[in-house]
Amino acid sequence: MASGVIAQLKSTGKPDLALVQNQGPRQAAAAVFTSNRAKANPILWSERVILDGTVSAIVLNSGGANCFTGSFGFQTSHATAEAVADALGVSAGDVLVCSTGLIGVGDQEFRDKILTNIPAAAAALSTDGHTAAHAILTTDTVAKTAEFRGEGWSIGAMAKGAGMLAPGLATMLVVVTTDADLGSADLDQALRAATRVSFDRLDSDGCMSTNDQVTLMASGASGIVPDLLTFTEALTAVCLELAHKLQGDAEGATHNINIEVVNAASVRDAEVVGRSVARNNLFKAAIFGNDPNWGRVLAAIGTTDAKFDPYLVDVWMNGVRVCHTGEPDQPRELVDLQPRDVHVLIDLLAGSETATIYTNDLTHDYVHENSAYSS
Amino acid sequence: MASGVIAQLKSTGKPDLALVQNQGPRQAAAAVFTSNRAKANPILWSERVILDGTVSAIVLNSGGANCFTGSFGFQTSHATAEAVADALGVSAGDVLVCSTGLIGVGDQEFRDKILTNIPAAAAALSTDGHTAAHAILTTDTVAKTAEFRGEGWSIGAMAKGAGMLAPGLATMLVVVTTDADLGSADLDQALRAATRVSFDRLDSDGCMSTNDQVTLMASGASGIVPDLLTFTEALTAVCLELAHKLQGDAEGATHNINIEVVNAASVRDAEVVGRSVARNNLFKAAIFGNDPNWGRVLAAIGTTDAKFDPYLVDVWMNGVRVCHTGEPDQPRELVDLQPRDVHVLIDLLAGSETATIYTNDLTHDYVHENSAYSS
Repeated sequence: MASGVIAQLKSTGKPDLALVQNQGPRQAAAAVFTSNRAKANPILWSERVILDGTVSAIVLNSGGANCFTGSFGFQTSHATAEAVADALGVSAGDVLVCSTGLIGVGDQEFRDKILTNIPAAAAALSTDGHTAAHAILTTDTVAKTAEFRGEGWSIGAMAKGAGMLAPGLATMLVVVTTDADLGSADLDQALRAATRVSFDRLDSDGCMSTNDQVTLMASGASGIVPDLLTFTEALTAVCLELAHKLQGDAEGATHNINIEVVNAASVRDAEVVGRSVARNNLFKAAIFGNDPNWGRVLAAIGTTDAKFDPYLVDVWMNGVRVCHTGEPDQPRELVDLQPRDVHVLIDLLAGSETATIYTNDLTHDYVHENSAYSS
Repeated sequence: MASGVIAQLKSTGKPDLALVQNQGPRQAAAAVFTSNRAKANPILWSERVILDGTVSAIVLNSGGANCFTGSFGFQTSHATAEAVADALGVSAGDVLVCSTGLIGVGDQEFRDKILTNIPAAAAALSTDGHTAAHAILTTDTVAKTAEFRGEGWSIGAMAKGAGMLAPGLATMLVVVTTDADLGSADLDQALRAATRVSFDRLDSDGCMSTNDQVTLMASGASGIVPDLLTFTEALTAVCLELAHKLQGDAEGATHNINIEVVNAASVRDAEVVGRSVARNNLFKAAIFGNDPNWGRVLAAIGTTDAKFDPYLVDVWMNGVRVCHTGEPDQPRELVDLQPRDVHVLIDLLAGSETATIYTNDLTHDYVHENSAYSS
């Protein structure tokens, strides 16, 4: 059950407070959090709640990150959980809290607006997650949802995130629900496996958020216990779909750049190499200009400690091998960078592992969105 | 002695080939090179030349990086040194080579243009370094020089660099000359001390070049042996002056941002914390928009492993304490970000070490310069 209401936290007057309740019979959950040491107050609260693997509800607000707001801010997260507990007749210790928006926002007015509107959010709960998916958005231009239908069980999910998209996790709030009958240990294992190859490999702008949280809640309402491997694969597909939707809606982006690293000595090496390209502003600006400047790819990967010989590397851009064994190969003019999707393939010739990092180009609109107003 | 000539490597028809000769009596030298593993061919050549600490001349070209151009490119660097050796009557093994420009450029035409024009560069050698300082420029808008007058000895220096400015080293070519009578071991010690707190702390856009080289050449012509500490301090001042000139001419920048980290547990911690802010695109875009978005400073430093408590940090922006012990302090409206120079002070309250990282804002012009054409 989900709902979204207007708490006037956003200046736009759009929905900004979302509630998702797990009506059971099981209330198992798992969550992963930002690896940023500067964690927002709702993260500090939620890290405690998830410890016992039981979650009755999750409440999410946009319009303020409640981060670096001190002990008052932590009390706000606590009070928010208490208000949800009162409205739903559950324990506050089983209520997760997520916030997103400007860091440093979380004063008395912010708290009052949330607490005042929780009863309305509780009253609006329904099986339609549409308004909730809108209420968690910040600079996103579209709501992002994904679902999977299994044999008698299903997964549904919503995500928000457009800026501060970088790993560990990308800047995002994600809520995944399932009626599969799985315990919190299984959920935790599945969630970590799924996020490792999806959200953790999304690196739109190299900036890591203070408020990231991906939550998986299972009700067991289907009465079906899926095979854990099957469930993990389904969950991974749902997370990848959402990651691609986040990539597609990244602030100001005109290209989705998928950096596939093959023949690496290890998965970690492949990730490190892919991420070094994803974080190279010169490369990202070149892609915005539809310029297949492969020298910037090589300059980026040369900064890593991954195992490979810089002079024995092949680079393809949208199917054209522009660099072969460290020397110019096909003419760069053959590369067509007009499509939104750009595929960079880096062959390290150093092993057999692979990873793909998902990023975006660096555009005028990215600069505009992040300079013209506080977000 | 120095010169600069037109070799038609640049499409602009401006000087693009520079030569600097050390006429002795001493020909001591030291150099530091990019830490990028993807090293350009002139770097591979120069790393061998510097081993014995003797350098007679350095030849530098803009208009092509001669990087990722294979064994042909290495032979070009070698042939360039041979041509200089022939023209000056010195050993090719004592001639350093530097190149800057587009990666992947270094074909037969590139080689011919350089070799053909080296005699003219040798013939043009004079005590006026002005044309040489212009010949090494790429996207720079002004020539960059610095000098120091000691007691009977002096230091002169020129630098180029505007993009790919990041540490280890920043993307730059620098030639420093002195008539002090010092050996290569002393020069090496002084140069490493000076670059560690100047060029190594310049991080304009997080992108590390393949062609960086800082060279220090001593002729001993003054006959004076300065105290090494005095010389190192003078050299450091010259390097810092050039680093600030590079920062001031960075591609598209509208602000010079100096991130001073104080009370760190170690110098390394201070550098890591400062650099994490310098590389945060959201923070850099905010400064472009004159937005004192201090939350982005805290989100950036939270990604580091430096020793500090994220909830006990103070942040000043241009003299205004916007965050105190991890909570909002003075109103952000008090911060005036109109001046070109922006001072961010981060007090980690974790020790007594300090470091300042020099960076720039992320602007529309940066994106334009790096997307509108290959560079």
